[in-house]
Amino acid sequence: MKHLVNKELLVEESLYATANGYIGVRGTFEEGYPSGYETYRGTYLNGFFDTHDIRYSENAYGFPSIGETIVNVMDGQSIFIEVEDEVFSFENGQVLNMTRQLDLDLGINVRNVHWRSTKGHEFNFTFKRMASHITEELFLILIEIESLNYDGEIRIRSLIKSADKVASDADDPRVATEHILPMSVVDLSNENGIMSIRSKTRHSGQSVQVACRHNLEGSIEIKDEKLVYETSLKVTQKEKSVFAKYMIYTDSHKHSDPVRKGFELLGDVYKKGLPVLFNEQADFMRKFWDRCLIEIEGQEDLTYAIKYHQYQLLTAAGKDGVSQVAAKGLTGAGYEGHYFWDTEIYVIPFFTLTQPEIAKNILKYRHNILTKAKERSLELGHKRGAKMPWRTISGRECSSYFPAGTAQYHINADVAYGLIQYYLITKDDHMMREFGYETLVETAKLWLEVGHFKEGVFCIDDVTGPDEYTAIVNNNYYTNAMAKYHLEWTAKLYDKFNKDYMDKSDRDEMKKASESMKLPFDQDRGIHKQDDTFLDKAVWDFENTPKDKYPLLLNFHPLTIYRHQVLKQADTVLAHFLLDDTSDDIIKNSYEYYENITTHDSSLSPCVYGMMASRINQPERAYDFFMKTVYLDLKNLHGNTKDGLHIANAGGTFMAIAYGFGGLRIKPEGVSLRPTKPHDWTSYAFRFMVEDTLVKVKVSDRLCIQTTGPVTLTIDGQTYEIEGLLEVDYHGKH
Amino acid sequence: MKHLVNKELLVEESLYATANGYIGVRGTFEEGYPSGYETYRGTYLNGFFDTHDIRYSENAYGFPSIGETIVNVMDGQSIFIEVEDEVFSFENGQVLNMTRQLDLDLGINVRNVHWRSTKGHEFNFTFKRMASHITEELFLILIEIESLNYDGEIRIRSLIKSADKVASDADDPRVATEHILPMSVVDLSNENGIMSIRSKTRHSGQSVQVACRHNLEGSIEIKDEKLVYETSLKVTQKEKSVFAKYMIYTDSHKHSDPVRKGFELLGDVYKKGLPVLFNEQADFMRKFWDRCLIEIEGQEDLTYAIKYHQYQLLTAAGKDGVSQVAAKGLTGAGYEGHYFWDTEIYVIPFFTLTQPEIAKNILKYRHNILTKAKERSLELGHKRGAKMPWRTISGRECSSYFPAGTAQYHINADVAYGLIQYYLITKDDHMMREFGYETLVETAKLWLEVGHFKEGVFCIDDVTGPDEYTAIVNNNYYTNAMAKYHLEWTAKLYDKFNKDYMDKSDRDEMKKASESMKLPFDQDRGIHKQDDTFLDKAVWDFENTPKDKYPLLLNFHPLTIYRHQVLKQADTVLAHFLLDDTSDDIIKNSYEYYENITTHDSSLSPCVYGMMASRINQPERAYDFFMKTVYLDLKNLHGNTKDGLHIANAGGTFMAIAYGFGGLRIKPEGVSLRPTKPHDWTSYAFRFMVEDTLVKVKVSDRLCIQTTGPVTLTIDGQTYEIEGLLEVDYHGKH
Repeated sequence: MKHLVNKELLVEESLYATANGYIGVRGTFEEGYPSGYETYRGTYLNGFFDTHDIRYSENAYGFPSIGETIVNVMDGQSIFIEVEDEVFSFENGQVLNMTRQLDLDLGINVRNVHWRSTKGHEFNFTFKRMASHITEELFLILIEIESLNYDGEIRIRSLIKSADKVASDADDPRVATEHILPMSVVDLSNENGIMSIRSKTRHSGQSVQVACRHNLEGSIEIKDEKLVYETSLKVTQKEKSVFAKYMIYTDSHKHSDPVRKGFELLGDVYKKGLPVLFNEQADFMRKFWDRCLIEIEGQEDLTYAIKYHQYQLLTAAGKDGVSQVAAKGLTGAGYEGHYFWDTEIYVIPFFTLTQPEIAKNILKYRHNILTKAKERSLELGHKRGAKMPWRTISGRECSSYFPAGTAQYHINADVAYGLIQYYLITKDDHMMREFGYETLVETAKLWLEVGHFKEGVFCIDDVTGPDEYTAIVNNNYYTNAMAKYHLEWTAKLYDKFNKDYMDKSDRDEMKKASESMKLPFDQDRGIHKQDDTFLDKAVWDFENTPKDKYPLLLNFHPLTIYRHQVLKQADTVLAHFLLDDTSDDIIKNSYEYYENITTHDSSLSPCVYGMMASRINQPERAYDFFMKTVYLDLKNLHGNTKDGLHIANAGGTFMAIAYGFGGLRIKPEGVSLRPTKPHDWTSYAFRFMVEDTLVKVKVSDRLCIQTTGPVTLTIDGQTYEIEGLLEVDYHGKH
Repeated sequence: MKHLVNKELLVEESLYATANGYIGVRGTFEEGYPSGYETYRGTYLNGFFDTHDIRYSENAYGFPSIGETIVNVMDGQSIFIEVEDEVFSFENGQVLNMTRQLDLDLGINVRNVHWRSTKGHEFNFTFKRMASHITEELFLILIEIESLNYDGEIRIRSLIKSADKVASDADDPRVATEHILPMSVVDLSNENGIMSIRSKTRHSGQSVQVACRHNLEGSIEIKDEKLVYETSLKVTQKEKSVFAKYMIYTDSHKHSDPVRKGFELLGDVYKKGLPVLFNEQADFMRKFWDRCLIEIEGQEDLTYAIKYHQYQLLTAAGKDGVSQVAAKGLTGAGYEGHYFWDTEIYVIPFFTLTQPEIAKNILKYRHNILTKAKERSLELGHKRGAKMPWRTISGRECSSYFPAGTAQYHINADVAYGLIQYYLITKDDHMMREFGYETLVETAKLWLEVGHFKEGVFCIDDVTGPDEYTAIVNNNYYTNAMAKYHLEWTAKLYDKFNKDYMDKSDRDEMKKASESMKLPFDQDRGIHKQDDTFLDKAVWDFENTPKDKYPLLLNFHPLTIYRHQVLKQADTVLAHFLLDDTSDDIIKNSYEYYENITTHDSSLSPCVYGMMASRINQPERAYDFFMKTVYLDLKNLHGNTKDGLHIANAGGTFMAIAYGFGGLRIKPEGVSLRPTKPHDWTSYAFRFMVEDTLVKVKVSDRLCIQTTGPVTLTIDGQTYEIEGLLEVDYHGKH
């Protein structure tokens, strides 16, 4: 008999969430859990949030006063199947077996349950959940009912209802501490078999609707804040029965008339019918995988695990230009559903390389919030430019802890990096003209505000780099190196794209700042210093830090951490990864020095160190980090997968193959590769797009490259013009 | 006719507060204000607070979770005088004149009002308020009623009642943002003409009682949360009438049985009677002034202003070893009634020099909270030692903004400095044995935890110095120099006082750390750097900062301020003042460099720069700063005197004379003087104690020193053994 483990279900709710970039529904059972089992039952809509006041015991000027938190919208997961007065659940009768699977080719979640009622009636129930990639507003649950020894009537009850509270934890900074109030129900309706609930967020007054219809006729009752549908059907051992529940979610951020739009879309999808809906989903997935499939020869599980993460990237990404990619995607409410720099640095590369049309829509978001970013810049005391928020949904700065929030000015350069990399590989002038260049310019201007020339050297003081175990420092290497790239490209693109966003003197100033950027260096160690004084600090006493004191951030005061040489995640090494900006020797020294003092307490860390291990020809270390990356969520290595999947790490999984083992980099002169292969693998293959050309790379003892058109690639420093097929004997390389 | 100015009354409430180091009552009128006039009506007891939860939108390990705020206790100020059905007030009849005065020789507040009722009855009312220096729990209001043209009955109503809410301002970090709930009334009683209210704080459940009795018999009624006493008396034009209200405040922090104690004390003082109570107060003041009187020849107003501040120091200081000195004393609820480093650096010098027995009691407080400070050290991640709280009442850290709170480790050295300076001048071994040395040791140990040796140099990273316009830096000069002094003296005193608080290896480590302390220096400018990288930052753009943008902290985000060379207050210069630790040239260069970039947004700044202007022989600048110091509150120069007086600045006023113009310093070899005299002054005189000897210094064209016993003084580098009188021709010095 199948036994459920409490708490593990929370993790599975994230792992088996059903999402499509707009809707996300956590994988709670339709029939509910046994009593006493915890659930973070949740349905989220990307970009749909409520606001709350942020209060400070000691306030200061420019501290954000309004926060945003993704809300748990109306719930449509509950479906109860009743056989001769006994309701199917883990508490009644016996569950003989249960399996769950995310079918990546069909784009659906499947759960099979073999159940025997107290009276001995046996059934196979197959629950299929789909969040449509064609109609983003559609969430569908389908149940196939197979009777194994019973002929007779069964009854089905199906609910839509107002939502539970968002999960929160006052002691874990990675989870929301503000208890967001549940929404207030504005309207419940029941007309012609269509049931709907409309609710409003308590503070911001935004509205959301779920409209729902079933494939079978039934009765509908309104009870308090619930709508209860009920039907009965005859089942026989001969034939499977199908029960389907269509739900359309619409909200006032995304839709100008969510009520009308909701009913309209529900009509459309209902008319299409189930086979069409499932087919078009499968079609979509086929096209998707055709662009990005990664295969590890002979390793099905690993291949699936990698594919799983690519699918999570797809289902996390807002594709409408006004929503973006939350740190946990739509699989949980961790980090309040906020968008961070994770998107540009860890997520967009996948889309840029394999689904550029989606990449473009994600990139558009930053332009969409540019006005708010410009206001924020003025609020901070700068005279111009745009300051991207460290964490946000709508564009307003929501970080209430500025040393690891507002101080992370590098987000401006990260945004620029996403744009520039996309532009270099797609050559998409239209994107630059439409929104890219203006975003580059306004974010670049901020560097001229923040930085200053000291004896001809451009310095940037009092910022925090990606490594949040050191804060408010001068000349963080990552920040300066990324700002240099940002300024350099903004100045370079001036002649082509200037539409009076800046004048020539700005361009010249940017060029000068970029060329004279301070990049602190330590001669003795032959490495770039993380910041001006980082290497002067005491090294953390790792030897006397017991295992249960990690992650450090949950066990030591920030000051005690800041005071030491200890990294939460890659910082200088990340700059070397993104920019490939210095010599092999320095990169190697840097890797050895910094990795040694990195705790990897951040999920953003292992993938970067993994890729850079490949870069410095250390395949075992690369493989080790790669495995930590792939299984971070699938094996809940950080212990907080319950709050949602680590979407940046999903991006890191893709990057670990393409950028790590494949050694891919996007340079102004084109794409370059520098493939290595883990010893255990026979071969691996990955794909990417260069403009309209699909490139398939297979690395075994030979390197085999297949393209759908002409493309220029640099492989290990040698440039090839490829059209069709290129094979290179690769045995023993690196 | 006397016209009242709204808002100005708030300032006067602070300026005319009546306090004695335990009780503080703001100077609101007995008869109340005209409607629409604002008041921060308040009665405070030193060390009596309520707690509240501190919430963080993004929490981190070691952030304080419980805050403390001084509470407004029961109010006894209301007294209404009724003449033929008309109640005296500014709204009824006509106030022909009003004067207010704080009588520094009698230790009482006096307010005279000349009033004419609508019917033409004229009176002089003289309100006297006294918080006794003999019986700290006693607050007394006395009214002298002089009828000018009326013979007949008047009625008097006198109230005690539960208190108003503490004043707060969500946008000003210098005022409490948490709305502390008013206390709950537990008991109201009325027995034998004695009325009392007992209340409890809402969160911490501490109790406080006011017991009250009047000199005249009357009726007493309990109404809701009030007790109303009423009496009538016959007045004639021949004779003044006297009405007196005795109030005894007791609380459960200070008194083991506040109820019993309250009634007991009320009985005692009532028995003593009014003449005795006023006489003993005057006696006390005579003895007080005998030790500390400062006189500026021919300048009565200035002499009074200086004396006023000395009196404020007396009335702010807790003298029971468990309370200390709040930033606003007991004159307002600004800074939540918290104790800061202000006490040790700005307040204690006055007591050490003139009232050492009070100094000793203030110093004791830190020993009293040592256990909590040791717990806090462990919580921060240190292995031992004590970390003094940045702001607190009971000893728990209450600073919720750590970059300018917990990060200010220098408080440990400040506490030590207070102890050492006291010890050097009093030679009070008993104090060291009783509590001083243990406090020195435990606070000194922390430096060994926070600092580390780098290439033989002792470095202290990630701390904030006194100047809060720069935060979280490495090797703040002030911190390091003060820690050096702290470590040096702790090690020095080891042989004499060690009682197993530390072992010899600790002593040796302290000595080594002290001797090899990093004191960052800039060769080009010939100054000590405020911290390792301070001088690398851009200088604040003062030229383009309009006047209304000061203080900067209310107009710019902390990061924007931190990023620049700009000081809120003296930092390096303060170290030079306290330690006299370097050459005249460096001190001069340092002064010129740093003063030029200091906004003096902190009230702790002008007095220091003033004293150091004397040190570098710039009498005009010294005088200018001195005047800003003396009139900071008296003329409300910072605009926030309404929230309470700046007690550190009161200390600064005393120091400006003794340390500034007098050039006094306490050194291991004794007291040294280096007198200068402002050009405008004919002469000035100040007093101080060296052990049991009173020293009077008068500076005119001659220097005249009178002592009550033998004393060694160094004057301008020359050592004198003085007993009785020394006169030196001083014309033209400096």
